[in-house]
Amino acid sequence: MKTYFLLPIIFLLLCNFASAQFAGMMRGQKQEPLPEGYKPASTNTFLARYPAVNSETRQAMFRVVAPTAEKVQLDLCNKKYDMTKDDEGVWTCISDPQVVGFHYYAILIDSVAVMDRNTEAFFGSNWESSGIEIPEGPEGDYYRFNKNIPHGHVRSVYYWSELNGLERHINVYVPPGYEQNNDQKYPVLYLVHGWGEDENGWSNQGKMANIMDVLIAKGEAVSMIVVMPSGDIKTNPDVREAKGNVTEIFANDLIPYIDQTFRTKTDRQNRAMAGLSRGGFQTCMTVFNNMDKFAWMGTFSGFFVRGNDVVNAFDGIFNDAPAFNKKMNLLFISTGTEERNPKEQVDALKAHGIDNIVFHESEGTAHEWLTWRRALKQFAPLVFK
Amino acid sequence: MKTYFLLPIIFLLLCNFASAQFAGMMRGQKQEPLPEGYKPASTNTFLARYPAVNSETRQAMFRVVAPTAEKVQLDLCNKKYDMTKDDEGVWTCISDPQVVGFHYYAILIDSVAVMDRNTEAFFGSNWESSGIEIPEGPEGDYYRFNKNIPHGHVRSVYYWSELNGLERHINVYVPPGYEQNNDQKYPVLYLVHGWGEDENGWSNQGKMANIMDVLIAKGEAVSMIVVMPSGDIKTNPDVREAKGNVTEIFANDLIPYIDQTFRTKTDRQNRAMAGLSRGGFQTCMTVFNNMDKFAWMGTFSGFFVRGNDVVNAFDGIFNDAPAFNKKMNLLFISTGTEERNPKEQVDALKAHGIDNIVFHESEGTAHEWLTWRRALKQFAPLVFK
Repeated sequence: MKTYFLLPIIFLLLCNFASAQFAGMMRGQKQEPLPEGYKPASTNTFLARYPAVNSETRQAMFRVVAPTAEKVQLDLCNKKYDMTKDDEGVWTCISDPQVVGFHYYAILIDSVAVMDRNTEAFFGSNWESSGIEIPEGPEGDYYRFNKNIPHGHVRSVYYWSELNGLERHINVYVPPGYEQNNDQKYPVLYLVHGWGEDENGWSNQGKMANIMDVLIAKGEAVSMIVVMPSGDIKTNPDVREAKGNVTEIFANDLIPYIDQTFRTKTDRQNRAMAGLSRGGFQTCMTVFNNMDKFAWMGTFSGFFVRGNDVVNAFDGIFNDAPAFNKKMNLLFISTGTEERNPKEQVDALKAHGIDNIVFHESEGTAHEWLTWRRALKQFAPLVFK
Repeated sequence: MKTYFLLPIIFLLLCNFASAQFAGMMRGQKQEPLPEGYKPASTNTFLARYPAVNSETRQAMFRVVAPTAEKVQLDLCNKKYDMTKDDEGVWTCISDPQVVGFHYYAILIDSVAVMDRNTEAFFGSNWESSGIEIPEGPEGDYYRFNKNIPHGHVRSVYYWSELNGLERHINVYVPPGYEQNNDQKYPVLYLVHGWGEDENGWSNQGKMANIMDVLIAKGEAVSMIVVMPSGDIKTNPDVREAKGNVTEIFANDLIPYIDQTFRTKTDRQNRAMAGLSRGGFQTCMTVFNNMDKFAWMGTFSGFFVRGNDVVNAFDGIFNDAPAFNKKMNLLFISTGTEERNPKEQVDALKAHGIDNIVFHESEGTAHEWLTWRRALKQFAPLVFK
């Protein structure tokens, strides 16, 4: 097979591949041994060796090629680390031990916050961010890809929203067997991201497909469709106009589209909604204003009743506790122990007679993805049963 | 609805959202009017106003907040532009006119190539890159989202590959109606990306779903499934071991998985393969070594026969021209007029008696995505007929 030119060499010379970029990449990834105990992070792009993580100490080592920069820092979980430069202009540092799971980070090149181009990009804080996955021990069994069980598919779908006046992107998880069982209809969970993230957060940062696959394979959760919309209703007004508000779009536009397009069970007993952080609030707004459409709900790190005043909270939805109990099979509220805790609100709701609450605390985690992976693992087995 | 705290404010103080990042974002996107004729690029993240593009002149204006940087440049299509700084540390520049379609670019902060965090991230040159879409005139009708026609779905699928010893990520486009027509089986096109990109390239940079939706709606292409695998067989050896070669994985591992999982027609008359650039070469290697499995093929900017020696090319696959003609219904070869042109090779093949060639030249485009969008538009209507 010698009858072809070495195409990659040619391509480097062409428009779309700047040689400086390529040189930078190669220098950043030179093949000297990684430090003892370190392996490339699973969030790295496929050839990248740094950042590298130590699964024992849960530290991460970062490396940036920036020979001409004056100062380079790592910004990880609200701490800035000064990086040190070697003779070739490669900057490195090792982080403190981190909580397992996913964390955003940035590199500061002469104080300008940029991404590390050797890790996958994740949308967070309303712009493209770098992320690193700190390896788990046995903890990760529920969110790792498991080759021995069947897998659902995440579908990337664009649909036209009349209320929004735009095409909207959603991700839809269909469970294993959906393809084969053509007569089966499924319950639907609507699952919303938080502030500054987007409809890809649950599948990329949250590993929701792996979590659902495992729960379904073990028989802990029923087979369900999971719809992940964007919680943002606006597009840039300079590009094109957007209309509607997100709760109306969810209730009156997205649900009908899903029920027309997928094999769904369409009664309220077979429809749930949950969200994290701001998505938890959007869940409350959507469900409480559409109690005829939902019978199960969850808010992960996102349920706040000011002053524990449950009587007046959310336009008085909890006023008539027996009526609420009768309608809502589950009000799941969760939090990390290292973030603002809604326990007093939960106690106030219970004291007021709201019976169907499940409260979950994620030990040792903050406002971060491990909290929400754990929340989904706790929540999904409770619905549609 | 005053019973909740303003969650976003709280979140900014928590682990995952560095305040410096947020401040940078806000400063970068201040709401002063865009220059006359400019609109935010469609590749921007949803609130970002820059880069902005002028659809008349096909120029783009870039903006970077970097008060502490000494020098900031734009690197776009092999040209570096010096950016100029205002009193607030905001750097701007306007590019030369660009070819419509998608282009990679980078920002150089004190000579370090980084991404623009206000545009979507695209995987190119084997790392995360910024990209900008230059708006089309009527040209774009075939690759724009069209709200008046039915839409297929792109499914994100992980499957376990025994040959590779890894879970592999593929994207699978299923055409409009696939959900509803449970008894229908479909032909399958395998469509491969080029060097330095990945299995997401065709749907993200290539807009293949929009292209297929339009072709199918017009009746120009038959309804088909399109499978987009990764052309890279390696994972980082420091992370985990990978086995196999890509043509064997495609032929002996991916095809059986697809035929088991989707409602496919499984005979060779209903299986095609095409690829761009290095993916065109991978297409040749896969198809020529598996003539019992494919009856249609295309190489976009990726067909090279050294010295036009068609007799010895690809281990002599063209030697017996009548045999090749009988087996292969279509050998589609395309290029942009501004890149290396395989016309002489095509002429040599024809002179040798290979009859079933279609040769397509994309006017005025180089080794870039507009060339490949046009190629798919030309190629897809020719297969399975």
